[in-house]
Amino acid sequence: MISFKNDYSEGAHPRILEALTRHNFEQSDGYGCDEGCARARALILDAVRDRSCDVHFLVGGTQVNLCLIAHALRPHEAAVSAGSGHINVHETGAIEATGHKVLTRPAADGKLTPALVREVLEEHTDEHMVRPGLVYVSHPTEVGTLYTKQELEALSFFCRKRELPLYLDGARLSSALAAPGNDLELPDICRLTDAFYLGGTKCGALFGEALIIRDETLKRDFRFIQKQRGALLAKGFLLGIQFEELLRDGLYYELGAHANAMAEQLRGGIRGMGYSFAPETRTNQLFPRLPDGVVEALSQDYAFELWAKGGDKQSVIRLVTSWATKEENVARFLEDLQRLSR
Amino acid sequence: MISFKNDYSEGAHPRILEALTRHNFEQSDGYGCDEGCARARALILDAVRDRSCDVHFLVGGTQVNLCLIAHALRPHEAAVSAGSGHINVHETGAIEATGHKVLTRPAADGKLTPALVREVLEEHTDEHMVRPGLVYVSHPTEVGTLYTKQELEALSFFCRKRELPLYLDGARLSSALAAPGNDLELPDICRLTDAFYLGGTKCGALFGEALIIRDETLKRDFRFIQKQRGALLAKGFLLGIQFEELLRDGLYYELGAHANAMAEQLRGGIRGMGYSFAPETRTNQLFPRLPDGVVEALSQDYAFELWAKGGDKQSVIRLVTSWATKEENVARFLEDLQRLSR
Amino acid sequence: MISFKNDYSEGAHPRILEALTRHNFEQSDGYGCDEGCARARALILDAVRDRSCDVHFLVGGTQVNLCLIAHALRPHEAAVSAGSGHINVHETGAIEATGHKVLTRPAADGKLTPALVREVLEEHTDEHMVRPGLVYVSHPTEVGTLYTKQELEALSFFCRKRELPLYLDGARLSSALAAPGNDLELPDICRLTDAFYLGGTKCGALFGEALIIRDETLKRDFRFIQKQRGALLAKGFLLGIQFEELLRDGLYYELGAHANAMAEQLRGGIRGMGYSFAPETRTNQLFPRLPDGVVEALSQDYAFELWAKGGDKQSVIRLVTSWATKEENVARFLEDLQRLSR
Amino acid sequence: MISFKNDYSEGAHPRILEALTRHNFEQSDGYGCDEGCARARALILDAVRDRSCDVHFLVGGTQVNLCLIAHALRPHEAAVSAGSGHINVHETGAIEATGHKVLTRPAADGKLTPALVREVLEEHTDEHMVRPGLVYVSHPTEVGTLYTKQELEALSFFCRKRELPLYLDGARLSSALAAPGNDLELPDICRLTDAFYLGGTKCGALFGEALIIRDETLKRDFRFIQKQRGALLAKGFLLGIQFEELLRDGLYYELGAHANAMAEQLRGGIRGMGYSFAPETRTNQLFPRLPDGVVEALSQDYAFELWAKGGDKQSVIRLVTSWATKEENVARFLEDLQRLSR
Repeated sequence: MISFKNDYSEGAHPRILEALTRHNFEQSDGYGCDEGCARARALILDAVRDRSCDVHFLVGGTQVNLCLIAHALRPHEAAVSAGSGHINVHETGAIEATGHKVLTRPAADGKLTPALVREVLEEHTDEHMVRPGLVYVSHPTEVGTLYTKQELEALSFFCRKRELPLYLDGARLSSALAAPGNDLELPDICRLTDAFYLGGTKCGALFGEALIIRDETLKRDFRFIQKQRGALLAKGFLLGIQFEELLRDGLYYELGAHANAMAEQLRGGIRGMGYSFAPETRTNQLFPRLPDGVVEALSQDYAFELWAKGGDKQSVIRLVTSWATKEENVARFLEDLQRLSR
Repeated sequence: MISFKNDYSEGAHPRILEALTRHNFEQSDGYGCDEGCARARALILDAVRDRSCDVHFLVGGTQVNLCLIAHALRPHEAAVSAGSGHINVHETGAIEATGHKVLTRPAADGKLTPALVREVLEEHTDEHMVRPGLVYVSHPTEVGTLYTKQELEALSFFCRKRELPLYLDGARLSSALAAPGNDLELPDICRLTDAFYLGGTKCGALFGEALIIRDETLKRDFRFIQKQRGALLAKGFLLGIQFEELLRDGLYYELGAHANAMAEQLRGGIRGMGYSFAPETRTNQLFPRLPDGVVEALSQDYAFELWAKGGDKQSVIRLVTSWATKEENVARFLEDLQRLSR
Repeated sequence: MISFKNDYSEGAHPRILEALTRHNFEQSDGYGCDEGCARARALILDAVRDRSCDVHFLVGGTQVNLCLIAHALRPHEAAVSAGSGHINVHETGAIEATGHKVLTRPAADGKLTPALVREVLEEHTDEHMVRPGLVYVSHPTEVGTLYTKQELEALSFFCRKRELPLYLDGARLSSALAAPGNDLELPDICRLTDAFYLGGTKCGALFGEALIIRDETLKRDFRFIQKQRGALLAKGFLLGIQFEELLRDGLYYELGAHANAMAEQLRGGIRGMGYSFAPETRTNQLFPRLPDGVVEALSQDYAFELWAKGGDKQSVIRLVTSWATKEENVARFLEDLQRLSR
Repeated sequence: MISFKNDYSEGAHPRILEALTRHNFEQSDGYGCDEGCARARALILDAVRDRSCDVHFLVGGTQVNLCLIAHALRPHEAAVSAGSGHINVHETGAIEATGHKVLTRPAADGKLTPALVREVLEEHTDEHMVRPGLVYVSHPTEVGTLYTKQELEALSFFCRKRELPLYLDGARLSSALAAPGNDLELPDICRLTDAFYLGGTKCGALFGEALIIRDETLKRDFRFIQKQRGALLAKGFLLGIQFEELLRDGLYYELGAHANAMAEQLRGGIRGMGYSFAPETRTNQLFPRLPDGVVEALSQDYAFELWAKGGDKQSVIRLVTSWATKEENVARFLEDLQRLSR
């Protein structure tokens, strides 16, 4: 069984494990207060070109999302998200468990726009309703699409005018940064948001995410929240070691580029057989629409997610590539699909 | 600088890193649903001699505590803990952040007794007060002491009579199990509690804790809580690999035994110089009472925690040993202390 | 200015104030443990024809909703509601503030159906998503519509099959019970739900709501939750006195009937002038669609809510009648509307 | 059975009921936005001599406490209280249910001091512990004692230096203000705290409390929290009417004076029989120490609380007087006690 189910099926890029092994017997301070974390922070601040930001290391995406949002909102405030947003659907009510509503708007391409956020604001007018207090986006989105620089600038401008912090979930940011046609560089993302995270778990690290906070108000006391939510790793130095390795010579971008290259091969091959995608993406998630029989047959040898059932004997499946995806497995998948498609 | 500050200053026992490296390119299912986790679970169930238990893997101790307690309690219920309990002091209100009060009783030796819990119960009589809903103990306790089998049996018997789940925090359980004079084996702990965890982070794993749930009611839906609190690791297989390695041939006990042996050497040496301990322990934490001048001098070369200031120019410090503590560093510490004590 | 803005603009039916005055100097036990509350409970149990239920008195609707729902749900469970549900829109995230998500489906007529609830259940399949744990309906709904007995039976049957508690918000239940064509009597509502409340605040009481819990599991420890949420009135006897007066000889139904009669007069008059309603109702809320100019002119002398703006120079307004609405004010409104409509 | 159990056994001073009856058919805006509330606010601002404060009306004390504290604290912050504080013991974990720990210090007389608060601050030094974020006191305290002006000034000065909001629970403030020897007037209390409430429920109102917020930061968005917690009464005008009546010509003080006078009669009589009090008070709660046999005999005809059992066949009971306590009942109690004491 070959898996295209997600980008966290394997351990870590070998350089990560080597770095962990290399530092294994060093004695470090706990909770991210060690020198390795300091070096990783410095590299990240170089990469975002803003040395005034705070950087915190956490273990997983849901943790980052719930900590940052619980930290940013007052009790009566809510997060605004696309309906498909990870915080709305796939975190078992983690945000609500911290006391906050998630206000949503449907968005077929997974992207929020100033117009959609304005709609939410206009509906929430007084103290009988929650107050929108933060805007949550992800890049790539849940459906693998990307904001353009122009789109993120427009959203950022709108949010600042309305004094709404803008927070970006970058679980798969390495893929976004390396995507064909992408025009949003790390410094852009940093400049246009109030906080965002650089995903590690889905981008070749063993585990871990790096949260960058640019907004002064959001910086205050974040470590308390992190500790309170069980998200302050005792051996924080493990996170520092990994992000130092990912950032010090471009490994982070390379791993995204590899995942994307594998996705492009799959995409090209599948499209060549006449299939379409819903939606179209250029990142490491692809959503081909295939006949139900083909899907069934493929599932004997390949693991992937069934994304949406069509009523016309067709289904959309999700294929995910990663830093670890092997070219030979891509080739084999395409051969098998070719054969099944005859 | 040599650190006796805690037992999570280094990475992991080399066998752990080797196992992670060995499995690195295998594709595994996420969220602890892989075969490695299944094997680790089986080994743990063998070790506790109760195959009916559920086993969940989490990343850190605060996470386990807050998940299990939020899971066990109804909104109006509270956890009962010794005043020194980790959940009461050192988790930044993690339990309260899930909505629950922590009811405490002072206990110089860090241990709860049926009499102390009864006091709490007798004070909480009606709906104007919270209802005690779970008893939290740790073993070793925060101050390194151990429950005897008789003590834990008495507490367990009392809790069952009063229908109070008993939950044991085993962050440093490997040290407890290997301590001189310990008469509480894993099957005893499992039998006498409703849930407990086998600490990994402080016992030689890279990170991770294994929660064992024996009580049927507590088993229900725990994975939902885990996910909601950001405590369901995407690459759960990393935890399975580690616990399989720790449990398959006694490594877990060996690492505890090493930490204890190093602590005993320190203890013996320090006692031999005429110093006392507060409290006395046989596990990997020791609390010598030293003159302030000596403490000051030691702190130039050694990292440790200042535990309590005495008013008599003496202070209690905490020294912690671990699976990674080197005999030569113990010897050096004792030499330096000897020299400073003249 | 004459108000048709809501049904809580005036104090209470004079008999309520008289009863409060009559009992004023009696000494009663606090927190609803007095004899007057016992008498009121007995009357309510007679009315619902099920003496096994528990009855609790609370001060307002949001309080009842948040207490009952926080009480019913485990941390990972969510309430299912129509999108227009009071808990979803007009309680400032009160449910989320207790840690729970509200899952919604759009419903133009404000009513949930088994099909809509099934959709929600089918989308929530595993521990990465919240689990639907309670179904919330209101009767009359937010838009003044009524469930038929057949509709509520179908929903009740479905919920029981799926082990989902069904909770009914009866803030305006006196109007529902007295509505033309209504076939849902109190015993039906009690039998078909697991808990519901008999609204007082909007039905002629000075304040207060009576929560009836039929389900055994939901009965357990409710008073703890009530106290914890600040919803256990010290002078609970004030609520007992009121509900005893409302229930002892049919006053509750009379007051609903009066509100409905006033609404029918308004409805008949408005319809007679050729206007339509969106939606059509038979309870004490009506939603006429009027030209913007007419709405503007009416707002000089009458208070009411602007419900929805149409794009065609028409708007829907909401008119609410109550136990206190004066026939002369209805007549005057209709005259003015007639004049403005020429 | 005559009750000295509490000060909320009867309805309301007749003038309150008359005022409610007088205004009964007026149509008012909801949620405290009516003119009666505006008049009541103006009277309160006159009384506290600070027209810059915000005034909010709520239904009960636990509600005010939980709303104000949840409003004031960030997620990682805790309230500091005397161990006997109402929020710590008698609100079923209401503060914890909003996510916040209550940090306590034992205080035999129920009063916090700068030294006690400093102790709490000194113990909470970093992000592994909650941060003290608000100081909660009550006046009179839970045990009926009073802060002197000097004591409250010292506490206020300390809190301001440490940037800790000081919040005063005035559930029985009318008794404090009218107590013999009291030197804390309303303007003092307002000036020295950041928020406090003027109790109604226990001071002769039918129900209701008036929260005065002086601190600018605490003012922001309070109504959202009030609504979210089910503490924004739909018929808010009922609260305005009551506080207008209580404040417009000194009724509030008169009612406190009556309660105190009845308490002084009891106190004098009891002391005259040779009994002592624990603690000594001058407000409407008194705590005589009586032989167990006498307590038992009294309980046949009088309702009161058993406060503390002594080991010496003596018990402390709590007697509470109120605006409604009748002199004849006081006399009868003293006669009976005299007879039983022979």
